[in-house]
Amino acid sequence: MPERSKAVKDVLAKFAKIRKKYTSPQVVTEFLFLLILGIIMALLSFAMDYTIEKCQKAHYWLFLELRDSAVLQYFTWVVFPLIFILFSIGFVHIVSPQAIGSGIPEMKTIMRGVVLHEYLTFRVLVAKMVGLTSAIGSRLPIGKEGPFVHIASIVATLMNKLVLPFSTASENEYSLHEMFGAACAVGVACNFAAPIGGVLFSIEVTATYFAVRNYWRGFFSAVCGAFAFRLLAVWNAKEETITALFKTNFRVEFPYDLQELIAFVAIGIFSGFAGALFVYVHRKIVEFFKRKPNIFKNMKMKYFIQPIAVSILMSTLTYPNGLGQLMAGELTPKEKLDTLFDNETWAKLGYIDESNVVVDSQEGWKHPTVNIFATLVIFIVTHFLMSALAITLPIPCGIFMPVFLIGAAFGRLVGEAMASLYPDGFHSGEKIYRIVPGGYAVVGAASLSGAVTHTISTSVIVFELTGQISHILPVMIAVLIANAIAQWLQPSIYDSIILIKN
Amino acid sequence: MPERSKAVKDVLAKFAKIRKKYTSPQVVTEFLFLLILGIIMALLSFAMDYTIEKCQKAHYWLFLELRDSAVLQYFTWVVFPLIFILFSIGFVHIVSPQAIGSGIPEMKTIMRGVVLHEYLTFRVLVAKMVGLTSAIGSRLPIGKEGPFVHIASIVATLMNKLVLPFSTASENEYSLHEMFGAACAVGVACNFAAPIGGVLFSIEVTATYFAVRNYWRGFFSAVCGAFAFRLLAVWNAKEETITALFKTNFRVEFPYDLQELIAFVAIGIFSGFAGALFVYVHRKIVEFFKRKPNIFKNMKMKYFIQPIAVSILMSTLTYPNGLGQLMAGELTPKEKLDTLFDNETWAKLGYIDESNVVVDSQEGWKHPTVNIFATLVIFIVTHFLMSALAITLPIPCGIFMPVFLIGAAFGRLVGEAMASLYPDGFHSGEKIYRIVPGGYAVVGAASLSGAVTHTISTSVIVFELTGQISHILPVMIAVLIANAIAQWLQPSIYDSIILIKN
Repeated sequence: MPERSKAVKDVLAKFAKIRKKYTSPQVVTEFLFLLILGIIMALLSFAMDYTIEKCQKAHYWLFLELRDSAVLQYFTWVVFPLIFILFSIGFVHIVSPQAIGSGIPEMKTIMRGVVLHEYLTFRVLVAKMVGLTSAIGSRLPIGKEGPFVHIASIVATLMNKLVLPFSTASENEYSLHEMFGAACAVGVACNFAAPIGGVLFSIEVTATYFAVRNYWRGFFSAVCGAFAFRLLAVWNAKEETITALFKTNFRVEFPYDLQELIAFVAIGIFSGFAGALFVYVHRKIVEFFKRKPNIFKNMKMKYFIQPIAVSILMSTLTYPNGLGQLMAGELTPKEKLDTLFDNETWAKLGYIDESNVVVDSQEGWKHPTVNIFATLVIFIVTHFLMSALAITLPIPCGIFMPVFLIGAAFGRLVGEAMASLYPDGFHSGEKIYRIVPGGYAVVGAASLSGAVTHTISTSVIVFELTGQISHILPVMIAVLIANAIAQWLQPSIYDSIILIKN
Repeated sequence: MPERSKAVKDVLAKFAKIRKKYTSPQVVTEFLFLLILGIIMALLSFAMDYTIEKCQKAHYWLFLELRDSAVLQYFTWVVFPLIFILFSIGFVHIVSPQAIGSGIPEMKTIMRGVVLHEYLTFRVLVAKMVGLTSAIGSRLPIGKEGPFVHIASIVATLMNKLVLPFSTASENEYSLHEMFGAACAVGVACNFAAPIGGVLFSIEVTATYFAVRNYWRGFFSAVCGAFAFRLLAVWNAKEETITALFKTNFRVEFPYDLQELIAFVAIGIFSGFAGALFVYVHRKIVEFFKRKPNIFKNMKMKYFIQPIAVSILMSTLTYPNGLGQLMAGELTPKEKLDTLFDNETWAKLGYIDESNVVVDSQEGWKHPTVNIFATLVIFIVTHFLMSALAITLPIPCGIFMPVFLIGAAFGRLVGEAMASLYPDGFHSGEKIYRIVPGGYAVVGAASLSGAVTHTISTSVIVFELTGQISHILPVMIAVLIANAIAQWLQPSIYDSIILIKN
């Protein structure tokens, strides 16, 4: 047909090319690769969460069982985590010292083209998995998100070696680098069941330039991972259906008043400074131990004396019959986050919305004589220092989760203060909309973790984690402010670690 | 201090550099620039929405006022939009024909480094704004999202010319390109009050490579824009506080059962084919008019006869006393979307959850004799063709919104069918969780618009638009499937337009 325009021919030619590309065996392999990667990571993440929860529960169960003897009770509370930490240190040291630390700084280096030898092997995988499980099982304030980025990259590398015989070398070299992007995304996504946040976070922390055509890989893999991860929870009868990991139940018809934005901005500003301070304190701790080379050349000191001292100190601080009462010591980090995001007003001891069925979850935070504000402040200060200290230990450890938790507690503190100052909220209409302190906790968590890691995508993670997006603008504003301040004052924690290690 | 390690010095040196960079006047200018850009775009978007709503309301008011005379009623219903469309065509033709179309394909070309002359001038801005307002005011099934990407880029260019005297030329060249990225993001964000989705969507549709360090610019500007846009709604007493644009109120404790995922996957598959078909139909329409060059060389044909025919056809089809009854003809696109996302089950004429206060919003969709399924099917088929036809007219027009609306209707159709087939849902426990057809509408909207534009970020837009993220996994899965199928069959609508125009 001569009247058929050339443009349309072009379109059709392009489209034929795309179709050819799509139906090539390589693409099918790639889809399968990403799917299986997602499922494997979900299984690993779920299995690890399960084991960690059992360890933490066993710890608390032992504590309760021994309530007749105060000495024995204290002794087990301290020794139990100590064994776990020493096992983690020993295991990682013997199997593969490469597994120490978060993994995100190293992945960032690898994504920039630097070759780190022996960093993505099966040995490292085993060391990281076992070491991490036992370290978090000890209730140390560390997370599993950074290590999971590392673990996902190892799994992708190992899977790639299996696929290698079926494809040519040059194709493979090319796709391996693309796979790392997807692997980092799936690593984050499997942790928080946050596919979108996972993709964005992994781009922000590992990449400098980013090809849009690779975007779908990360998404596809992350969705498979997050989906499988939540599906496992349903199959284990923990959940009735697929929902968010830390589901919140805030009021959606009037989430916050405009005047509350001032408080949200304040959270952002404070989080920015606190995030920079966290990076600074962490570096100072590392520097302090480096400054005493005569002591620290000593293996015993690095691998035994320091960890033992840190572990005993932390266990003593969080001991539920002692100071732990003032910082919700009996709760696991997961329970702490659940309660911080809840839908009550602790200070007023009342529910925000009577129609929402909520359980009285402040038990862990309540103290007969000390009020909730003091508890929260003590928790924030001690955990700020403990987290900065814990991530300097020679174990696999994530930085995101402890910072996220501190941020949530800080947000909660501001929210409770607001709720006490303005018990009936700001709204001037007929209906009274009380202040939702849980919403402040969400804003605080996103902005402090955003400040420490220099990422904006923590805001997306927080929506996916809570299953609610009603506080989108406060969260975004606070995260942007916190980022601006933290970036002005300090490098990100990951860059700081890269620079220290170099 | 000699023991101070070199690494720490490096850190401090880098941090001093960053701080210096941050406090330079250029960065302050940039922040202000992005802030003002966001606010201007929010004002433009709000003003345009306001005017469009008034036009659409006036149209319906006239229709109601003339209810005594059937002839006059029909006449005004048809002539009113005709005048608006002809005004839009004439205005754009006289002031600047560059304003015709979406703008996204052109911005994509510009972002790739091609210089399009006279494409980002004040004349184009005026033509696009006025032409678009009057075209959408006529109730044509077109959107304002694509044009807003274009408008934001023009505003950024014009603002940049004002800033030019204060900075050196080389700096400026560099930053202008970065600004376009932020401008595209703010353009989308101001439309849907969706900052995150806006940033991602603009990256997906305009960029091929993307520097992570520019990421915050888009976010900052988009947040300012979205915030100002919603703030204007509060100040105009339309809303009590800042909330989502098309707020939904779905059940969060049990959003969907696992078995419903099969239906969501089906929506994804169908949307993929439908999206490809839309691109194909649109191209065939363009081709059809190009094939008759003897007629279409004629200015009258292109600028008068075709638009008049299209306008009369559409008005007749949607005439509320005629066929319009079968496709919610009396509702504006905004009202249609609001009702499609509502929390009822139309087919069963009952509420999903008695405790949620909802209004009976299916009025527009209900017909005394024809059931809701037929209404939805008729709506989908007619609007599919009408939208494909409308975007070929020589007016400024966005493609996203009409496709989004059709997708929502299709999702609703599936949801209503599911709710009729399984009136008590799938859950086997004590409590009955009925199926939420509105959730299906959300999935359908995201996946069809994702398929047509070849983007994954429609899923993020849909969460920000509805203010709920409970359906995250169904939406992500459906969007990914729809994308895979649509990308396999056809280029994206924007690429198709680029190829046709070349």
